[in-house]
Amino acid sequence: MFRGIFAPIPTPFVDEEIAYDKLEENVAKWGKTRLAGLVVFGSNGEAPYIDEDEKVEVWSFVRKCLPKDKVMIAGAGMESTRATIRLVRKAAQAGADAALVLNPSFFKANMKDAALETYYKDVADASPIPILVYNMPGNTALNISSSLVVRLSQHPNIVGVKDSSGNIVQISEILRGVPDDFSVFAGSASFLLPSVIMGAVGGTLATANVVPDLCVELLELATQGRIQEAQKLQKSLLALNAAVTSRFGVAGLKAALDMIGYYGGPPRRPMLPAGEPEKAEIRRILTELGLPLVE
Amino acid sequence: MFRGIFAPIPTPFVDEEIAYDKLEENVAKWGKTRLAGLVVFGSNGEAPYIDEDEKVEVWSFVRKCLPKDKVMIAGAGMESTRATIRLVRKAAQAGADAALVLNPSFFKANMKDAALETYYKDVADASPIPILVYNMPGNTALNISSSLVVRLSQHPNIVGVKDSSGNIVQISEILRGVPDDFSVFAGSASFLLPSVIMGAVGGTLATANVVPDLCVELLELATQGRIQEAQKLQKSLLALNAAVTSRFGVAGLKAALDMIGYYGGPPRRPMLPAGEPEKAEIRRILTELGLPLVE
Amino acid sequence: MFRGIFAPIPTPFVDEEIAYDKLEENVAKWGKTRLAGLVVFGSNGEAPYIDEDEKVEVWSFVRKCLPKDKVMIAGAGMESTRATIRLVRKAAQAGADAALVLNPSFFKANMKDAALETYYKDVADASPIPILVYNMPGNTALNISSSLVVRLSQHPNIVGVKDSSGNIVQISEILRGVPDDFSVFAGSASFLLPSVIMGAVGGTLATANVVPDLCVELLELATQGRIQEAQKLQKSLLALNAAVTSRFGVAGLKAALDMIGYYGGPPRRPMLPAGEPEKAEIRRILTELGLPLVE
Amino acid sequence: MFRGIFAPIPTPFVDEEIAYDKLEENVAKWGKTRLAGLVVFGSNGEAPYIDEDEKVEVWSFVRKCLPKDKVMIAGAGMESTRATIRLVRKAAQAGADAALVLNPSFFKANMKDAALETYYKDVADASPIPILVYNMPGNTALNISSSLVVRLSQHPNIVGVKDSSGNIVQISEILRGVPDDFSVFAGSASFLLPSVIMGAVGGTLATANVVPDLCVELLELATQGRIQEAQKLQKSLLALNAAVTSRFGVAGLKAALDMIGYYGGPPRRPMLPAGEPEKAEIRRILTELGLPLVE
Repeated sequence: MFRGIFAPIPTPFVDEEIAYDKLEENVAKWGKTRLAGLVVFGSNGEAPYIDEDEKVEVWSFVRKCLPKDKVMIAGAGMESTRATIRLVRKAAQAGADAALVLNPSFFKANMKDAALETYYKDVADASPIPILVYNMPGNTALNISSSLVVRLSQHPNIVGVKDSSGNIVQISEILRGVPDDFSVFAGSASFLLPSVIMGAVGGTLATANVVPDLCVELLELATQGRIQEAQKLQKSLLALNAAVTSRFGVAGLKAALDMIGYYGGPPRRPMLPAGEPEKAEIRRILTELGLPLVE
Repeated sequence: MFRGIFAPIPTPFVDEEIAYDKLEENVAKWGKTRLAGLVVFGSNGEAPYIDEDEKVEVWSFVRKCLPKDKVMIAGAGMESTRATIRLVRKAAQAGADAALVLNPSFFKANMKDAALETYYKDVADASPIPILVYNMPGNTALNISSSLVVRLSQHPNIVGVKDSSGNIVQISEILRGVPDDFSVFAGSASFLLPSVIMGAVGGTLATANVVPDLCVELLELATQGRIQEAQKLQKSLLALNAAVTSRFGVAGLKAALDMIGYYGGPPRRPMLPAGEPEKAEIRRILTELGLPLVE
Repeated sequence: MFRGIFAPIPTPFVDEEIAYDKLEENVAKWGKTRLAGLVVFGSNGEAPYIDEDEKVEVWSFVRKCLPKDKVMIAGAGMESTRATIRLVRKAAQAGADAALVLNPSFFKANMKDAALETYYKDVADASPIPILVYNMPGNTALNISSSLVVRLSQHPNIVGVKDSSGNIVQISEILRGVPDDFSVFAGSASFLLPSVIMGAVGGTLATANVVPDLCVELLELATQGRIQEAQKLQKSLLALNAAVTSRFGVAGLKAALDMIGYYGGPPRRPMLPAGEPEKAEIRRILTELGLPLVE
Repeated sequence: MFRGIFAPIPTPFVDEEIAYDKLEENVAKWGKTRLAGLVVFGSNGEAPYIDEDEKVEVWSFVRKCLPKDKVMIAGAGMESTRATIRLVRKAAQAGADAALVLNPSFFKANMKDAALETYYKDVADASPIPILVYNMPGNTALNISSSLVVRLSQHPNIVGVKDSSGNIVQISEILRGVPDDFSVFAGSASFLLPSVIMGAVGGTLATANVVPDLCVELLELATQGRIQEAQKLQKSLLALNAAVTSRFGVAGLKAALDMIGYYGGPPRRPMLPAGEPEKAEIRRILTELGLPLVE
């Protein structure tokens, strides 16, 4: 059963090409933290900007760089069922322990529960590795309902969900309905504590790229019922989390990483890098958290 | 400082007229529970369907029926500043301990933070009783930002907020920024536990009309850090809460009250009463919660 | 049958009180234009900010000031059926030729087609004057479907619709389904020409307060099939229309009126008056249209 | 300059593989109509479900099957700038006359005007063939503003726009601002007449797959100012258009084609084929239009 804190890592570029040396250094650093593992090609990995063969190569590379006791989850959702199945299989061959599968969303009017249920079951049936459902309505503009997640949790090869909606009622409804061994992950550090209080077993958090051990500490405090300390830590992470997600996005996350000694670098076009005002704000937030800055 | 569980009571009608005898019976029952008090003319009171003089009369009536140790909060938000000030003053004369003020929302494009900030400060300056901000984007289609609530919390006569958005990150941001003596209330029973874990001191809950003491128990379990029990109780209330809010609305709440021995009755037109399929579903949910039904 | 261009007039205030002398002057000016009539207490009249007795008094006053050959339509929609019926009857007594009835929208989840259909039929049954349906989703966050309007058009006392959605497909669907003597009005000058091409017989246009005769001219060109001239005039009105509706709202409309010799004045609180940058932009647009400015 | 009616053709599958024989037959039929040309891999081509090499092969194939006097426009928008440039170049090599480029939309919060403007200019600079901007907010949940389209129209290699928003005011604002030789296309048959009245030179219409010559006739009537006939024809196409777009989507379009003697077939998974109730409704609509049905 998957549990703990995962970092959905960004993809490092130099001149828009994947910079494997930077990636290796970053992964080495994350490998020394208390993270349960990495998600490679979640939204923060700029997945829609990465070609299929690039994804496979990066998965193999990260798997080699990452300590064996760390889990690697491959972000492998595509719009069509056949492309997703193909990619999930390649992820398995590349050493992924599980696949995180974002729902198809382009044809919104057609992606009702019946279509999405068939999609996930078809993928899960064909996948050599376990499937985690990925709900990210901020990007897809299409929410996966709690009732659908509950139905999908009955499939033997669908083992968890990452819910990035921030809708704590929806997350609670999921937790009420799924089996005990189905892993529910908070999709953002900003609602990790409330999610764990309701029964979530971890988080897949952009913020965990920047402060992995603080996120692990928050999970532990929450799990141990040390509510006052957990609440305080949860509140202290809100500003950083907003900066690397809703406010400045992947560009903000990369800027933050550059400031603390990881390689962030620019996003691929058309995503614009963080500007100076954004960087100043991120620097202020990191300083407030007491992080030593390298730039 | 306001804290605890409040029931935003529905308004009983017979032939579309306010039924004071039914109201008296209902209030007497709620008066014997562990509720901190009642909100009279929140959304569940069908506030937009009630004339101004009716509101004043009902406030006076409820205040007389309600035990003195219970708080009465008057829902008094109107679209214009002057009408809200007028109504807040009448609420004070009628014996309300505080006024819950929904934001104006009709002219959405004009109701930016600057306008709303001025509105709340103008009302608070003129009000003889403390003001609670009421955020209900499900009905207003206009969210009050956490940063605005934080600014408003500096006003000496603005003492709390009821947030019905269900956005736990927003509620957390509010709690991070407001003074310790500013009362943050969950606006729905479905996210009471997560809100209290983050620092909320209570809830104003449609569900508290139906199961007041269960809501109080949930608040106590949460406050005492008895997380496992609280989580279980929170999950058990999700279905009832959805039935009397997002799924079937005030009509659902009234149908549920009829089933457990309170008077619910029909809503005012144009709101339609719950149909038989809705009632069957509500009956199923109440039975599952172990409540004895009278019809 | 109602047809032609109507101005939904703003309500003039001095120190937040209705300024009848200003109103009289304004109405006298509009009375000399080619407008078919006025709408008193549409959205531009700040209807949600006006008390019921104020509305009745203004209707009577405007009816007296307005030339007899001009139609007066009273904006009379309220949230409850009973309040709307009461107000529609008072509008009739005050001399209104018809009532424009905005749909109830606060309880969005409950205001499905069945509830809205009952609402409009109940109001129409009880009204001494004809009813025009008013769809304004920009403010209500609730659209009235074309199929519902088509059904309502069968009622003998529902004689037209003002559609402010700007959804030309919806307007076309309405025009395909309603009887020939049912009046479909464009709700904004920005889509008057396309609406008339599809069969609309007029418009109820904020812009018609500022340039009434240009709006009448556009309607005539459109009706006569003088497409090139109509297209050119339609395009020339887009910027003004945006300024007095979506961009700056009623405050923008009032500022524009002040500039051309009508009385605009400030809105009631909480709506903020137009600031200097907005006024400069409005001035620029009016100048571009060749209007002589008085301030 | 591009003008006229284009059909954004669906991609025929047998057992989820592209059926070139079916495609050839369909293209031959469309080739004999009065269509100006075909769009290959617009939304109706299930573009997000098609691999890059499949797209290139289909473009080459269609170009060979299509009469030389018909234009072929390649739908070539991808999420990243580099992938779009790569694909646009391949489309040019495959014989496309222009590329229709949908905006990137996954990272909604980052795709503000500045990012989209850079994206389109980068693509246009690198493209050997002219670029048409494609705005489809129903699928992307991200609208391209009229002011951005106006700015983009200044680029020598950006020659037009297909606007599927249905927002006639936005289309009018575009037409007010772009040069005369910039081609504005209605993105749906349901607002073709109003768009042409405002200055659009054609349409790229799902409905044109089913009734190509009726769409051409509507464009001609509109262009010639024969408003009564145009209005009547426009209204008669509304139901069919809704069935093959907003109501039943690509699955509905394919079902309609099957009924009139083209090959439609099933969509790729996860899109579900039209069910029997949908088919019955489509059959009814086609019959009402007087089309002879083969099934």
